[in-house]
Amino acid sequence: MRSFIPVEPSNHFPIQNLPYGIFRLRDNSGKPRVGTAIGEYVLDLSVLEEEGYFQDIIDQEEKVFAAPFLNPFMAKGPDVWQSVRRRLQMLLSENEPKLRDNVQLRERALIPQADVKMELPIKIGDYTDFYASKEHAANVGTMFRGKENALMPNWTHLPVGYHGRASSVVTSGTHFNRPCGQIKPADTTKPIFTSCRQLDFELEMGFFIGMGNQMGEPVPVEKAEEQIFGMVLVNDWSARDIQAWEYQPLGPFLAKNFATSISPWVVPMEALEPFRVKGPEQDPEPLPYLKHTKPDSFDIHLEVFLKTPNMEKPDCIAASNYKYLYWSAAQQIAHHTITGCNLNTGDLIATGTISGPEKRSRGSLLELAWRGTEPIKLSNGEERSWLEDGDELTLTGWCQGAGYRIGFGEVTGTILPAKLIERRSKATI
Amino acid sequence: MRSFIPVEPSNHFPIQNLPYGIFRLRDNSGKPRVGTAIGEYVLDLSVLEEEGYFQDIIDQEEKVFAAPFLNPFMAKGPDVWQSVRRRLQMLLSENEPKLRDNVQLRERALIPQADVKMELPIKIGDYTDFYASKEHAANVGTMFRGKENALMPNWTHLPVGYHGRASSVVTSGTHFNRPCGQIKPADTTKPIFTSCRQLDFELEMGFFIGMGNQMGEPVPVEKAEEQIFGMVLVNDWSARDIQAWEYQPLGPFLAKNFATSISPWVVPMEALEPFRVKGPEQDPEPLPYLKHTKPDSFDIHLEVFLKTPNMEKPDCIAASNYKYLYWSAAQQIAHHTITGCNLNTGDLIATGTISGPEKRSRGSLLELAWRGTEPIKLSNGEERSWLEDGDELTLTGWCQGAGYRIGFGEVTGTILPAKLIERRSKATI
Repeated sequence: MRSFIPVEPSNHFPIQNLPYGIFRLRDNSGKPRVGTAIGEYVLDLSVLEEEGYFQDIIDQEEKVFAAPFLNPFMAKGPDVWQSVRRRLQMLLSENEPKLRDNVQLRERALIPQADVKMELPIKIGDYTDFYASKEHAANVGTMFRGKENALMPNWTHLPVGYHGRASSVVTSGTHFNRPCGQIKPADTTKPIFTSCRQLDFELEMGFFIGMGNQMGEPVPVEKAEEQIFGMVLVNDWSARDIQAWEYQPLGPFLAKNFATSISPWVVPMEALEPFRVKGPEQDPEPLPYLKHTKPDSFDIHLEVFLKTPNMEKPDCIAASNYKYLYWSAAQQIAHHTITGCNLNTGDLIATGTISGPEKRSRGSLLELAWRGTEPIKLSNGEERSWLEDGDELTLTGWCQGAGYRIGFGEVTGTILPAKLIERRSKATI
Repeated sequence: MRSFIPVEPSNHFPIQNLPYGIFRLRDNSGKPRVGTAIGEYVLDLSVLEEEGYFQDIIDQEEKVFAAPFLNPFMAKGPDVWQSVRRRLQMLLSENEPKLRDNVQLRERALIPQADVKMELPIKIGDYTDFYASKEHAANVGTMFRGKENALMPNWTHLPVGYHGRASSVVTSGTHFNRPCGQIKPADTTKPIFTSCRQLDFELEMGFFIGMGNQMGEPVPVEKAEEQIFGMVLVNDWSARDIQAWEYQPLGPFLAKNFATSISPWVVPMEALEPFRVKGPEQDPEPLPYLKHTKPDSFDIHLEVFLKTPNMEKPDCIAASNYKYLYWSAAQQIAHHTITGCNLNTGDLIATGTISGPEKRSRGSLLELAWRGTEPIKLSNGEERSWLEDGDELTLTGWCQGAGYRIGFGEVTGTILPAKLIERRSKATI
């Protein structure tokens, strides 16, 4: 399958991908609307919708592609997603003249990615974050409780997860100030108010719920993947010192709610299908409601880049893979709903930090620099135990096909200096 | 201040209250819309809006009172809330003929509460649950860690809280099936899948965010109350056996996400103003960002009623008071936003279980029956350690004025039998 639009083998957006996103023109003319990425271009689906190219699939009057979020399209369900995807692949294929040879339509509908800015693609309902990487849980457990008690007794029996903060999920490129808050240094008797001293990233992926389930109606594990509209990269920024002080006994709260960044293009599950693999062996065997017979992981290569203010080009500081995750997305959904919890269109479920077996495959600075005891060395001679002001952190990921990539683009963010301390001190807080 | 509509002294909804809710007619004719409760009636604000009674306050074309949720009205902010409240008190007062003497308008706008059913009043964005009662935290800590370590070291320094599940917040009268899930009994080596054996309620109150704050802009504690649109009763149903097994290290998840019930009438903060009191002395002194100079608690009497299938009338099994809470709503908001977390219109923040100093003022069965070791005795001779199928649990609360009450109505729910086990066993899960 090839598109009439040329796509380099290393480009993330060939015709086999076709992720959905919300874009607006960089000059701010026009409203935010739905597009798909193809090579270096965005295809404006609201234009195709207006021209009637989907009228046999979705009622044109609903204008789901003129919406500022993907939710109305997501709520249509898997059959509609598939039909739209087929239509797009047909319209973009090298042998189909409808779009290829219609100069006027091409000019209206195909916009260089350089001319658009991407917005948050989905109006997020609830956001749940799991803790599904055994290597990550074991690394953190070893650091905090010692090697003998690295994993909690429940960890191998259920996908541990918790509710995150949906309001502060932002799209790639949203910079934020270093958070301030309450920490308790080891050498003080009382907690202090300060800017975060142990700011970290977390390499995660997330999936969005398409249609959802009714309250009281758990989603069986074998049906769980049907709930997934698509996937993104997630950076769950973490303030480790705030977390260490606050998290007992109800879990992380402020340490995570100041910002969570996601990549703007939502990759459909169908595009990932050729890269389906079996996840790690699960021992002990999970309870029946978590037992999945078909391979339910994906071979998605993940990389982390750090660029300090003194660097010209970023360093790759870690490389991991989605396939290392112990608990699959299907298992996460089955577990999440087993008590009857309802999932809604637009809910975000993230995997937790994806660490692998190698030292270089650790998905957070906490692990890479082993709680500050082994600072990572950068190519320009600098070292990092935690993120510093001005640091730009980027996650990227892709599936490697034969001569093409199914890519997730990237999610990036820069740490701006804390601003609260200064302002507050003037107000004599 | 008196209304031309007679209101008994024990009624929750005198002219001094005027809570907002979403109602529809019991016969399902008409759409859900905004009303205020007055005595035994609902005043239909969408009718008054249509007739132009608010046109100098809110653009009539916006039809905020014809909306199926309070959110559009809430987003208008405190000045509009106050103006609408003044207008309603004027229209309902005994000396004002506009509504009193307009038979046609009264017939359209005043509907007996018996003829309506109440819906979820607010489209909830994020839901946060705090743990703000010292007595509750100490009771739970004593049961699980012993008296010496009852409170975690952080507890007296910050309001501990966590993110809850917004999708499963339901309104009073929504019954639900006993949840099923994974628990680890003390006498088994492995966890098992079962229906919950330790189902509990939690007596809480919650407040709704009106306008919200920008990400990165913390709400100062002295300004925090301006963020609150109003308050409700909250029953945060809890599956204690599921919680005990799952909650380490990221906090409660499935144990709480199957249902959280709220009372349907949102009581404005202005109605509570005469009942403002000082909360408990805080020692140690909180950090400056949490220090509030004005009294920031309220004298709200709270009661818990249990009616088993064998009872004609419910028993009052606990009585507590909002004023016992150690951490105030203002402190909760200041803490929640201190790292820069943004609150949005419609976010729900609950207090956590409100227990008081007496045995009878404990706000959960976990505490009342001391983890099953001291079952509570009911008036008909039955006992309860946990909720059983068919049990109806009701929370109510009010402020006692001179000859009137500012009430919250009630929030009730009945436990239906677990249904998953049967269905699943057929499917040989």
